[in-house]
Amino acid sequence: MLEAVLKKVDAYFDELVDIRRTLHKHPELSFEEVKTPAFIADYLEKLGVNVRRGVGGRGVVGTIKGGKPGPTVALRADFDALPIQEETGLPYQSTVPGVMHACGHDGHTATLLIIAKILMEHRQQLEGSVVLIHQFAEELAPGGAIAMIEDGCLDGVDVIYGTHLWATMPAGEIGYRSGAFMAAADKFAVTIYGKGGHGAAPHETVDAVTVGASVVQQLQQIVSRNVDPLESAVVTVASFQAGGPFNVIADKANLVGTVRTFKEDIQDMIIERMERTIKGVCDAAGATYAFAYDKGYPAVINHPKETDDLKNAAVAVVGEEHVAEMAPVMGGEDFAYYLHHVPGAFFFTGAGNEDAGIIYPHHHPKFMIDERSLAIAAKTLLTATLSYSQKDASAHEPSATSDR
Amino acid sequence: MLEAVLKKVDAYFDELVDIRRTLHKHPELSFEEVKTPAFIADYLEKLGVNVRRGVGGRGVVGTIKGGKPGPTVALRADFDALPIQEETGLPYQSTVPGVMHACGHDGHTATLLIIAKILMEHRQQLEGSVVLIHQFAEELAPGGAIAMIEDGCLDGVDVIYGTHLWATMPAGEIGYRSGAFMAAADKFAVTIYGKGGHGAAPHETVDAVTVGASVVQQLQQIVSRNVDPLESAVVTVASFQAGGPFNVIADKANLVGTVRTFKEDIQDMIIERMERTIKGVCDAAGATYAFAYDKGYPAVINHPKETDDLKNAAVAVVGEEHVAEMAPVMGGEDFAYYLHHVPGAFFFTGAGNEDAGIIYPHHHPKFMIDERSLAIAAKTLLTATLSYSQKDASAHEPSATSDR
Amino acid sequence: MLEAVLKKVDAYFDELVDIRRTLHKHPELSFEEVKTPAFIADYLEKLGVNVRRGVGGRGVVGTIKGGKPGPTVALRADFDALPIQEETGLPYQSTVPGVMHACGHDGHTATLLIIAKILMEHRQQLEGSVVLIHQFAEELAPGGAIAMIEDGCLDGVDVIYGTHLWATMPAGEIGYRSGAFMAAADKFAVTIYGKGGHGAAPHETVDAVTVGASVVQQLQQIVSRNVDPLESAVVTVASFQAGGPFNVIADKANLVGTVRTFKEDIQDMIIERMERTIKGVCDAAGATYAFAYDKGYPAVINHPKETDDLKNAAVAVVGEEHVAEMAPVMGGEDFAYYLHHVPGAFFFTGAGNEDAGIIYPHHHPKFMIDERSLAIAAKTLLTATLSYSQKDASAHEPSATSDR
Amino acid sequence: MLEAVLKKVDAYFDELVDIRRTLHKHPELSFEEVKTPAFIADYLEKLGVNVRRGVGGRGVVGTIKGGKPGPTVALRADFDALPIQEETGLPYQSTVPGVMHACGHDGHTATLLIIAKILMEHRQQLEGSVVLIHQFAEELAPGGAIAMIEDGCLDGVDVIYGTHLWATMPAGEIGYRSGAFMAAADKFAVTIYGKGGHGAAPHETVDAVTVGASVVQQLQQIVSRNVDPLESAVVTVASFQAGGPFNVIADKANLVGTVRTFKEDIQDMIIERMERTIKGVCDAAGATYAFAYDKGYPAVINHPKETDDLKNAAVAVVGEEHVAEMAPVMGGEDFAYYLHHVPGAFFFTGAGNEDAGIIYPHHHPKFMIDERSLAIAAKTLLTATLSYSQKDASAHEPSATSDR
Repeated sequence: MLEAVLKKVDAYFDELVDIRRTLHKHPELSFEEVKTPAFIADYLEKLGVNVRRGVGGRGVVGTIKGGKPGPTVALRADFDALPIQEETGLPYQSTVPGVMHACGHDGHTATLLIIAKILMEHRQQLEGSVVLIHQFAEELAPGGAIAMIEDGCLDGVDVIYGTHLWATMPAGEIGYRSGAFMAAADKFAVTIYGKGGHGAAPHETVDAVTVGASVVQQLQQIVSRNVDPLESAVVTVASFQAGGPFNVIADKANLVGTVRTFKEDIQDMIIERMERTIKGVCDAAGATYAFAYDKGYPAVINHPKETDDLKNAAVAVVGEEHVAEMAPVMGGEDFAYYLHHVPGAFFFTGAGNEDAGIIYPHHHPKFMIDERSLAIAAKTLLTATLSYSQKDASAHEPSATSDR
Repeated sequence: MLEAVLKKVDAYFDELVDIRRTLHKHPELSFEEVKTPAFIADYLEKLGVNVRRGVGGRGVVGTIKGGKPGPTVALRADFDALPIQEETGLPYQSTVPGVMHACGHDGHTATLLIIAKILMEHRQQLEGSVVLIHQFAEELAPGGAIAMIEDGCLDGVDVIYGTHLWATMPAGEIGYRSGAFMAAADKFAVTIYGKGGHGAAPHETVDAVTVGASVVQQLQQIVSRNVDPLESAVVTVASFQAGGPFNVIADKANLVGTVRTFKEDIQDMIIERMERTIKGVCDAAGATYAFAYDKGYPAVINHPKETDDLKNAAVAVVGEEHVAEMAPVMGGEDFAYYLHHVPGAFFFTGAGNEDAGIIYPHHHPKFMIDERSLAIAAKTLLTATLSYSQKDASAHEPSATSDR
Repeated sequence: MLEAVLKKVDAYFDELVDIRRTLHKHPELSFEEVKTPAFIADYLEKLGVNVRRGVGGRGVVGTIKGGKPGPTVALRADFDALPIQEETGLPYQSTVPGVMHACGHDGHTATLLIIAKILMEHRQQLEGSVVLIHQFAEELAPGGAIAMIEDGCLDGVDVIYGTHLWATMPAGEIGYRSGAFMAAADKFAVTIYGKGGHGAAPHETVDAVTVGASVVQQLQQIVSRNVDPLESAVVTVASFQAGGPFNVIADKANLVGTVRTFKEDIQDMIIERMERTIKGVCDAAGATYAFAYDKGYPAVINHPKETDDLKNAAVAVVGEEHVAEMAPVMGGEDFAYYLHHVPGAFFFTGAGNEDAGIIYPHHHPKFMIDERSLAIAAKTLLTATLSYSQKDASAHEPSATSDR
Repeated sequence: MLEAVLKKVDAYFDELVDIRRTLHKHPELSFEEVKTPAFIADYLEKLGVNVRRGVGGRGVVGTIKGGKPGPTVALRADFDALPIQEETGLPYQSTVPGVMHACGHDGHTATLLIIAKILMEHRQQLEGSVVLIHQFAEELAPGGAIAMIEDGCLDGVDVIYGTHLWATMPAGEIGYRSGAFMAAADKFAVTIYGKGGHGAAPHETVDAVTVGASVVQQLQQIVSRNVDPLESAVVTVASFQAGGPFNVIADKANLVGTVRTFKEDIQDMIIERMERTIKGVCDAAGATYAFAYDKGYPAVINHPKETDDLKNAAVAVVGEEHVAEMAPVMGGEDFAYYLHHVPGAFFFTGAGNEDAGIIYPHHHPKFMIDERSLAIAAKTLLTATLSYSQKDASAHEPSATSDR
């Protein structure tokens, strides 16, 4: 079955590209998706897939029940776009001013739709089920994953796979990593309340600029002294805004920044240590403060066995020399939430092409992808899905499943 | 003569107030004064004073040559206003939107005009000359004093006096101080050029926020370690502006602030030490910088003997219990420049009145003065002038002066 | 009477020098003085002075009651030496190994003894009384002054004068200052308790070196931001001791230093702000601390009227051109305590002589004085004493005093 | 052959323990080893091993040429002891005062000697050669490895294995890690030269304490900002020594510490950044400095394939459940140098035993090992050696080797 399935990816490549370009022309922002989920649901229903709309709000979940018993594999693709004005000049560039698929989610969605089409054509041979999770709002915390999970999209799912097209890796390559793969990306804001006054009379003030500067300095010690040197963490104060006229001591300083971690205990330690640091420095100077810490998506922690399976699928598709273990990535993904509930693996499908000028990073107005990557993503996901189904099918023999 | 002269101040009090209110209604900004100097020059010419217009640009200098030989005493009054919208609700409040005599220069000018009137009436008895320096643009560096001095306003002058109406001191009081009286008030701006980048990848950046914070911290050591603890100095970073989105490391930080000193060697040391500090911290981090230091007016350093004379004049006018040595004031004044050329003294004439609600600081939209202070200022300046003239007249006997 | 008295100073100059050299040969450490007070008391008793020994422990107080009614003037001289090995090579150098009169207290004592001798010879003419306060232990806090005051040495005293021979001012000069003259000199010790550990595992430790360094840094802001720039204060961390082997994170850091101030409210603010700073920084890092602050002598604050009288006396003795107002001195003196109880003034009598090689600072093994300064000190104290007595004698007429 | 060989380890266990205890009784310090290498060489020669003494100074290299063609496998054991007074109270405790085998090198040596004995007994079956590298001076940089390599100990070697007995891991366990395993451990010393002076006159000094504190603070930014968060590095200032009396500003500050890294480019960056930081801070304050950076052993970077082989050998000996991938270790080892020349792997053999009170860390006066670990180490090294030989033997067939 696998061989036939993979051939169909090539056969349907034009349609795959076509769907992706259609989506690319009509991007929708996170939490504002209306036409995109309708398009997806319509497409799936036309294929005969059992579709549930409005999952968790704006998500679409399709279920393909195979002709044979077996496990349930979920595949996830996100479909939201970004508030960026496209500057690629491509014939199919965004028709919505200021909105752009600058992160490849259009490609993710097209890939999953083609997968659905192919699997429907081989439904009878399919052992077990495949759940197609079309997720909204990946780009904007709190994201769509939590709501879709709460709305049951993972019910009965045994394993989940997902990929991200990755423009800074050449098309043809696949990157995987077991364990901590993508970081938890949090945001914090500190406001320091001092007491303003004349620049020539510091003793009548609590100088928010020196207090803020001290906070920035002391925060450096968290990574340098409190984080295990064998672990990864970042504490960045990205913005420092305080004061006005040159001769007036600032009464307030606003610090905004980000924290990146791969482990919850380190994240917890950093939050606690940040607050202690801010409090200690403010106490010392007689200032007060407000500290807001917004946890972003947690770290994507791939499950070892599922990552291994995924890697084998990738090797089968692109060959061993084109599959590499990646270093962890400090950016975040709400795929992380799915992995809290079921085993699975998230991986990167190379989509860059230097010769073709496809060299711009994600979220860039000239972001593009080498569309051959769509086929590779589809084949890898299909291979992983079918391998998993076959391997685990025995555990899902009729007699066995009745006991579940 | 003195007694008669002082009586005239009371006699002309209504006119004194009237002139001041007229000026108050028609304020003009620094370096934009047109009607005010014309008004002053016209008034003086009508008195018969020898007037030079356009001195140093917009200044007016009147000279009253006495009937007897003697020294030349200069009296200075500034006449510019501020870009502030008046909110006093006084019947004679500013008729010019957004411009206001919120620092009392209207009163300084009226006082000097009435002095001129009185002295002209006693001209024959006057030993020596009195030079009336009506200065433009005191509020805005580089000020009008330098240009007027370069244009000869101090030529032949032996001594200079000037006063500032002071709303935070009760009317009836006079404050003096020998030596360092008002600080040099400078402005600086530092731009730190780092290298921006992703908040999760600090190693690919030069973080302008941490560099800026380090600069703020290290600058504290100038006052704490490099300034003689028996001297006064302030180094204030008033404003720290850096960065934007929470996940982007800032490529640039702007620090703006002020330095206050009373002595040139300390000012020089601070400038040099600031630049070394900024350079050292930037070098350490791999950042570069731009450092702009704008010297404001230098410190007002009153001459001891002339301050003593002035104090005696003040005691004669308001009584010993109403004359007090003041602590130095950290704000600046371009009267400082006159004192670089001739001996003299600058003093404060109390103009506040709590019971009358005259409690607002200078540069405040509700700034007011108790107009009785005008008469006190006039009497003190007249007393100091005539005392000086009499005392030094012997040195100006015809036979003696021919040798000068 | 004054003229005759001053002539006697010259007449007895050899004895004055002789007494000083005798004391110089036999120095005694603070709180260990035995022979010196005995010598003083014996000398005074031989003169017929009414002597009280063991005042406040080791002090000697002599009282000369004049033949006429009048006020009571106290003169103070300290008599302890220092734990320094003399290296002057003078014929009369210290015979006690490791102990030296390296601060001129021998001269102070000799001066006061000669004053006693002269006054006893003019006792009948003397209006009022003179109290001779020979103080022990000035060099070592808590000093001898408090105990002597508690033991009554100031009872009935109307005014007190004292001088310090000053080797860095030429002999022949006298320095005075009204108000804050010598600083309060305090000592502090901070111990930071972190948690030691392997140099490669900072996350398992609380690094006392970084905490200590942060404390040092943050303490700089007290002088730079919290002290009125018109006031004087010093916060110095003189010593930082932490850690051992290069690969072991320090569990403890000891910081020791000094604070200098002229005003109690600033001293109080600094102590409070120091503790808040240390606590804040330690809290931030998870360290604990011990903070010991030992107040030394308070600031010597001369009384204005008495300083003026003293200045006039000095002018009478050495001429106006040799009397100068001094800048405040950051070093401490327990003369400060007397001025808390009675009005008075402390001044410096120049004792240096560059041509004669008398150039070493106080507490130096080669410290010397130009002995002519002893006569000047004696004359100035005598002039101040007799001027005060005469001026105030009227208030002490028999009939008047009975009302007291 | 393997099975027979492993059985011999058990058979010779008593001798193995005996050798180890003999060595334990007679420890010798690094670079002072005389009797130990002689003992080793004698033992090997008695077995008939071809021995070279004095390799690189004090090393011993034995070569066992097998009866069949094959690759050359090197095994390394270090034999120096530490300047520690033993406090175990064991019957075979050190007889040399102040010197102790507190790191298990006695066990390493005994293990390699027994391996030699066994291999000699199976020499005819052995495919290829085994080189026994008995290294001196591992504990003290620059170590013995460099000199032994320069003296040819790796000539013709195809692969190298080595182990460290590890008391903080239970006996029976084996830990491995591919890639960066043990850190480069460097030492640095910074002396800051300021200008001392009176604690009350900071403006006349360059305060070495505040400069030193600023250096400590700024150094924190290297790890927090300049090291890739996905990499590991430590910069620890372990010791800060500056100043003396509480009222004297320090003229000098000594900072001593350690840097740990796994990659040379990060090590290089840190050294460069440290110097720039120290220079920048000193320049800012007007201080000068001396900066000495002593590189210790480089990081131990295990080769992936050889580590995999080693892991398989370990699994064969103790079972999969007792073999675990370890986190990198921040401590250093000069085994690192061998891996710069030939592929290989270094691993840890658990030697702790909580029940038996064998719980003390390395370099502790009560350090002990569970001697069963010696047999496990021997078996693992033998298994790895023979596996490698067999696998690679084909490449060493007579006909083939002639082409090399």
